[in-house]
Amino acid sequence: MNRWPLPEPMKHALKLAQQAALAGEVPVGAVVTREGKIIAEGHNTPRQSCDPTAHAEIQAIRAAALILGQERLSDCDLWVTLEPCAMCAGAIVHARIARVYYGASDPKGGAVEHGARVFEQPQCLHRPEVYSGIGEGEAALLLRRFFAERR
Amino acid sequence: MNRWPLPEPMKHALKLAQQAALAGEVPVGAVVTREGKIIAEGHNTPRQSCDPTAHAEIQAIRAAALILGQERLSDCDLWVTLEPCAMCAGAIVHARIARVYYGASDPKGGAVEHGARVFEQPQCLHRPEVYSGIGEGEAALLLRRFFAERR
Repeated sequence: MNRWPLPEPMKHALKLAQQAALAGEVPVGAVVTREGKIIAEGHNTPRQSCDPTAHAEIQAIRAAALILGQERLSDCDLWVTLEPCAMCAGAIVHARIARVYYGASDPKGGAVEHGARVFEQPQCLHRPEVYSGIGEGEAALLLRRFFAERR
Repeated sequence: MNRWPLPEPMKHALKLAQQAALAGEVPVGAVVTREGKIIAEGHNTPRQSCDPTAHAEIQAIRAAALILGQERLSDCDLWVTLEPCAMCAGAIVHARIARVYYGASDPKGGAVEHGARVFEQPQCLHRPEVYSGIGEGEAALLLRRFFAERR
Protein backbone atom coordinates (compact mmCIF):
# COMPACT_ATOMS: atom_id res chain seq x y z
CA MET A 1 0.00 0.00 0.00
CA ASN A 2 1.29 3.45 -0.84
CA ARG A 3 0.43 6.38 1.32
CA TRP A 4 -0.74 9.38 -0.69
CA PRO A 5 2.19 11.80 -0.67
CA LEU A 6 1.93 15.08 1.22
CA PRO A 7 1.98 18.25 -0.88
CA GLU A 8 5.45 19.83 -0.89
CA PRO A 9 4.41 23.00 1.00
CA MET A 10 3.08 20.91 3.90
CA LYS A 11 6.21 18.74 3.89
CA HIS A 12 8.23 21.92 4.24
CA ALA A 13 5.96 23.30 6.96
CA LEU A 14 6.48 20.06 8.90
CA LYS A 15 10.25 20.48 8.60
CA LEU A 16 9.91 24.00 9.98
CA ALA A 17 7.85 22.63 12.87
CA GLN A 18 10.70 20.23 13.66
CA GLN A 19 13.13 23.15 13.64
CA ALA A 20 10.90 24.93 16.16
CA ALA A 21 10.95 21.87 18.44
CA LEU A 22 14.74 21.68 18.28
CA ALA A 23 14.84 25.31 19.40
CA GLY A 24 12.53 24.55 22.34
CA GLU A 25 9.51 26.19 20.74
CA VAL A 26 6.08 24.58 20.28
CA PRO A 27 6.47 22.74 16.94
CA VAL A 28 4.33 24.58 14.42
CA GLY A 29 5.54 25.53 10.95
CA ALA A 30 3.98 27.52 8.12
CA VAL A 31 4.71 28.56 4.56
CA VAL A 32 3.09 31.01 2.15
CA THR A 33 2.84 29.92 -1.48
CA ARG A 34 2.12 31.89 -4.64
CA GLU A 35 1.43 30.15 -7.92
CA GLY A 36 2.42 26.92 -6.18
CA LYS A 37 5.84 28.16 -5.10
CA ILE A 38 6.95 28.78 -1.50
CA ILE A 39 7.72 32.48 -1.13
CA ALA A 40 7.98 32.77 2.67
CA GLU A 41 8.16 30.57 5.74
CA GLY A 42 7.98 30.73 9.50
CA HIS A 43 7.95 28.68 12.63
CA ASN A 44 7.01 29.44 16.22
CA THR A 45 9.58 31.65 17.94
CA PRO A 46 7.82 33.52 20.79
CA ARG A 47 10.42 32.48 23.38
CA GLN A 48 13.54 33.05 21.32
CA SER A 49 12.36 36.38 19.96
CA CYS A 50 10.52 37.62 23.10
CA ASP A 51 7.46 38.15 20.94
CA PRO A 52 4.07 36.73 21.95
CA THR A 53 2.84 37.28 18.37
CA ALA A 54 5.60 35.20 16.79
CA HIS A 55 3.48 32.26 15.71
CA ALA A 56 4.45 30.38 12.55
CA GLU A 57 1.58 31.88 10.51
CA ILE A 58 2.33 35.47 11.58
CA GLN A 59 6.01 35.02 10.76
CA ALA A 60 5.25 33.58 7.31
CA ILE A 61 2.59 36.21 6.49
CA ARG A 62 4.81 39.12 7.58
CA ALA A 63 7.71 37.76 5.54
CA ALA A 64 5.53 37.23 2.45
CA ALA A 65 4.02 40.73 2.64
CA LEU A 66 7.47 42.28 2.98
CA ILE A 67 8.81 40.27 0.03
CA LEU A 68 5.87 41.23 -2.18
CA GLY A 69 5.88 44.84 -0.92
CA GLN A 70 2.15 44.85 -0.21
CA GLU A 71 -0.03 44.34 2.84
CA ARG A 72 -2.49 42.05 1.02
CA LEU A 73 -1.71 38.54 -0.13
CA SER A 74 -4.87 37.87 -2.16
CA ASP A 75 -3.10 35.56 -4.61
CA CYS A 76 -1.30 33.60 -1.91
CA ASP A 77 -2.08 30.47 0.09
CA LEU A 78 -1.01 29.57 3.63
CA TRP A 79 0.05 26.08 4.69
CA VAL A 80 0.36 25.49 8.43
CA THR A 81 0.81 22.34 10.49
CA LEU A 82 -1.77 23.27 13.16
CA GLU A 83 -5.23 24.85 13.13
CA PRO A 84 -4.70 28.62 13.44
CA CYS A 85 -5.55 30.40 16.71
CA ALA A 86 -7.72 33.56 16.85
CA MET A 87 -4.70 35.83 16.41
CA CYS A 88 -3.47 33.98 13.33
CA ALA A 89 -6.96 33.54 11.84
CA GLY A 90 -7.41 37.31 12.22
CA ALA A 91 -4.07 37.92 10.49
CA ILE A 92 -5.14 35.58 7.66
CA VAL A 93 -8.27 37.73 7.20
CA HIS A 94 -6.30 41.00 7.22
CA ALA A 95 -3.84 39.57 4.69
CA ARG A 96 -6.69 38.32 2.46
CA ILE A 97 -5.02 34.91 2.11
CA ALA A 98 -6.90 32.96 -0.60
CA ARG A 99 -6.64 29.41 0.79
CA VAL A 100 -5.61 27.96 4.13
CA TYR A 101 -4.36 24.38 4.32
CA TYR A 102 -3.75 23.05 7.80
CA GLY A 103 -2.64 19.81 9.43
CA ALA A 104 -3.79 18.94 12.96
CA SER A 105 -6.96 20.29 14.55
CA ASP A 106 -6.51 22.18 17.83
CA PRO A 107 -9.57 21.89 20.09
CA LYS A 108 -7.80 23.90 22.84
CA GLY A 109 -6.37 26.83 20.91
CA GLY A 110 -7.81 26.64 17.39
CA ALA A 111 -10.17 29.33 16.15
CA VAL A 112 -11.15 27.98 12.73
CA GLU A 113 -13.25 24.91 13.53
CA HIS A 114 -13.23 25.57 17.29
CA GLY A 115 -13.82 28.42 19.73
CA ALA A 116 -13.98 31.86 18.14
CA ARG A 117 -14.49 30.37 14.62
CA VAL A 118 -13.16 33.60 13.19
CA PHE A 119 -14.00 32.91 9.52
CA GLU A 120 -17.60 32.02 10.36
CA GLN A 121 -18.42 35.35 12.03
CA PRO A 122 -21.01 37.35 10.08
CA GLN A 123 -18.76 40.45 10.10
CA CYS A 124 -15.73 38.53 8.81
CA LEU A 125 -14.39 40.70 5.96
CA HIS A 126 -12.71 37.89 4.04
CA ARG A 127 -13.24 34.14 4.16
CA PRO A 128 -10.41 32.03 2.81
CA GLU A 129 -11.11 28.57 1.43
CA VAL A 130 -10.04 26.18 4.20
CA TYR A 131 -8.72 22.62 3.85
CA SER A 132 -7.84 20.66 6.99
CA GLY A 133 -6.25 17.33 7.85
CA ILE A 134 -3.28 17.56 5.45
CA GLY A 135 -0.40 15.90 7.30
CA GLU A 136 -2.37 15.91 10.53
CA GLY A 137 -0.80 12.65 11.77
CA GLU A 138 2.74 13.97 11.32
CA ALA A 139 1.87 17.39 12.78
CA ALA A 140 0.11 15.95 15.83
CA LEU A 141 2.96 13.48 16.48
CA LEU A 142 5.48 16.34 16.60
CA LEU A 143 3.31 18.18 19.14
CA ARG A 144 2.66 15.08 21.29
CA ARG A 145 6.39 14.25 21.42
CA PHE A 146 7.29 17.83 22.28
CA PHE A 147 4.88 18.02 25.21
CA ALA A 148 5.63 14.45 26.40
CA GLU A 149 9.34 15.33 26.69
CA ARG A 150 8.47 18.36 28.80
CA ARG A 151 6.15 16.65 31.27
CA MET B 1 -19.25 71.89 33.73
CA ASN B 2 -15.91 70.11 33.69
CA ARG B 3 -15.42 67.01 31.63
CA TRP B 4 -13.74 64.23 33.57
CA PRO B 5 -10.15 64.15 32.29
CA LEU B 6 -8.96 61.22 30.21
CA PRO B 7 -6.26 59.05 31.77
CA GLU B 8 -2.80 59.93 30.42
CA PRO B 9 -2.22 56.61 28.62
CA MET B 10 -5.44 57.06 26.59
CA LYS B 11 -4.53 60.67 25.83
CA HIS B 12 -1.25 59.41 24.44
CA ALA B 13 -2.95 56.60 22.49
CA LEU B 14 -5.22 59.22 20.89
CA LYS B 15 -2.16 61.25 19.86
CA LEU B 16 -0.71 58.13 18.26
CA ALA B 17 -4.00 57.58 16.42
CA GLN B 18 -3.69 61.12 15.03
CA GLN B 19 -0.16 60.34 13.86
CA ALA B 20 -1.51 57.27 12.05
CA ALA B 21 -4.12 59.41 10.26
CA LEU B 22 -1.47 61.92 9.17
CA ALA B 23 0.44 59.00 7.64
CA GLY B 24 -2.65 57.83 5.77
CA GLU B 25 -3.27 54.88 8.07
CA VAL B 26 -6.55 54.10 9.85
CA PRO B 27 -6.27 56.16 13.05
CA VAL B 28 -5.83 53.72 15.91
CA GLY B 29 -3.22 54.13 18.63
CA ALA B 30 -2.14 51.96 21.56
CA VAL B 31 0.21 52.02 24.51
CA VAL B 32 1.38 49.42 27.01
CA THR B 33 1.75 50.55 30.61
CA ARG B 34 3.51 48.94 33.56
CA GLU B 35 3.06 50.28 37.08
CA GLY B 36 1.18 53.19 35.51
CA LYS B 37 4.02 54.19 33.19
CA ILE B 38 3.98 53.97 29.40
CA ILE B 39 6.68 51.51 28.34
CA ALA B 40 5.75 50.99 24.68
CA GLU B 41 3.51 52.44 22.01
CA GLY B 42 2.22 51.78 18.53
CA HIS B 43 -0.12 52.96 15.87
CA ASN B 44 -1.53 51.36 12.75
CA THR B 45 1.11 51.01 10.01
CA PRO B 46 0.02 48.13 7.72
CA ARG B 47 0.36 50.22 4.54
CA GLN B 48 3.63 51.93 5.36
CA SER B 49 5.29 48.78 6.61
CA CYS B 50 3.69 46.31 4.15
CA ASP B 51 2.55 44.26 7.13
CA PRO B 52 -1.08 43.17 7.50
CA THR B 53 -0.42 42.41 11.19
CA ALA B 54 0.81 45.94 11.99
CA HIS B 55 -2.16 47.05 14.07
CA ALA B 56 -1.55 49.48 16.93
CA GLU B 57 -1.98 46.80 19.61
CA ILE B 58 0.40 44.33 17.92
CA GLN B 59 3.04 47.05 17.51
CA ALA B 60 2.75 48.11 21.16
CA ILE B 61 2.74 44.54 22.49
CA ARG B 62 5.76 43.50 20.39
CA ALA B 63 7.67 46.58 21.49
CA ALA B 64 6.84 46.02 25.17
CA ALA B 65 7.83 42.35 25.07
CA LEU B 66 11.14 43.21 23.41
CA ILE B 67 11.86 45.97 25.97
CA LEU B 68 11.08 43.67 28.90
CA GLY B 69 12.89 40.70 27.29
CA GLN B 70 9.99 38.31 27.85
CA GLU B 71 7.09 37.00 25.81
CA ARG B 72 4.55 37.51 28.61
CA LEU B 73 3.33 40.87 29.85
CA SER B 74 1.35 39.69 32.89
CA ASP B 75 2.02 42.87 34.85
CA CYS B 76 1.19 45.17 31.95
CA ASP B 77 -1.96 46.91 30.74
CA LEU B 78 -2.93 47.84 27.18
CA TRP B 79 -4.68 51.08 26.25
CA VAL B 80 -6.08 51.29 22.73
CA THR B 81 -8.39 53.77 21.04
CA LEU B 82 -10.56 51.13 19.29
CA GLU B 83 -12.06 47.79 20.29
CA PRO B 84 -9.46 45.13 19.38
CA CYS B 85 -10.08 42.81 16.38
CA ALA B 86 -9.72 39.02 16.59
CA MET B 87 -6.03 39.16 15.72
CA CYS B 88 -5.26 41.72 18.42
CA ALA B 89 -7.51 40.10 21.02
CA GLY B 90 -5.64 36.85 20.37
CA ALA B 91 -2.30 38.62 20.79
CA ILE B 92 -3.55 40.12 24.08
CA VAL B 93 -4.31 36.58 25.29
CA HIS B 94 -0.90 35.23 24.23
CA ALA B 95 0.83 38.18 25.93
CA ARG B 96 -1.22 37.66 29.12
CA ILE B 97 -2.01 41.40 29.31
CA ALA B 98 -3.64 42.09 32.70
CA ARG B 99 -6.10 44.85 31.75
CA VAL B 100 -7.38 46.20 28.44
CA TYR B 101 -8.76 49.75 28.28
CA TYR B 102 -10.29 50.75 24.98
CA GLY B 103 -12.06 53.74 23.48
CA ALA B 104 -14.60 53.28 20.69
CA SER B 105 -16.56 50.11 20.10
CA ASP B 106 -16.18 48.51 16.66
CA PRO B 107 -19.29 46.59 15.61
CA LYS B 108 -17.74 45.77 12.21
CA GLY B 109 -14.26 44.62 13.16
CA GLY B 110 -14.23 44.30 16.96
CA ALA B 111 -13.84 40.89 18.59
CA VAL B 112 -14.22 41.75 22.28
CA GLU B 113 -17.87 42.76 22.61
CA HIS B 114 -18.71 41.80 19.01
CA GLY B 115 -18.21 38.92 16.59
CA ALA B 116 -15.67 36.33 17.72
CA ARG B 117 -15.77 37.61 21.34
CA VAL B 118 -12.34 36.08 21.85
CA PHE B 119 -12.14 36.55 25.65
CA GLU B 120 -15.54 34.93 26.16
CA GLN B 121 -14.65 31.62 24.48
CA PRO B 122 -14.61 28.70 26.95
CA GLN B 123 -11.09 27.67 25.79
CA CYS B 124 -9.68 31.19 26.22
CA LEU B 125 -6.44 30.67 28.16
CA HIS B 126 -6.32 34.11 29.73
CA ARG B 127 -9.05 36.69 30.25
CA PRO B 128 -7.86 40.25 30.80
CA GLU B 129 -10.01 42.67 32.74
CA VAL B 130 -11.67 44.85 30.09
CA TYR B 131 -12.79 48.49 30.41
CA SER B 132 -14.42 50.17 27.42
CA GLY B 133 -15.62 53.66 26.47
CA ILE B 134 -12.56 55.58 27.69
CA GLY B 135 -12.14 58.42 25.21
CA GLU B 136 -14.62 56.82 22.84
CA GLY B 137 -15.92 60.17 21.55
CA GLU B 138 -12.44 61.36 20.62
CA ALA B 139 -11.45 58.00 19.13
CA ALA B 140 -14.62 57.67 17.05
CA LEU B 141 -14.31 61.26 15.78
CA LEU B 142 -10.81 60.57 14.48
CA LEU B 143 -12.07 57.52 12.60
CA ARG B 144 -15.15 59.27 11.20
CA ARG B 145 -13.06 62.19 9.93
CA PHE B 146 -10.51 59.86 8.38
CA PHE B 147 -13.08 57.88 6.42
CA ALA B 148 -15.14 60.98 5.50
CA GLU B 149 -12.05 62.54 3.89
CA ARG B 150 -11.52 59.42 1.81
CA ARG B 151 -15.05 59.03 0.46
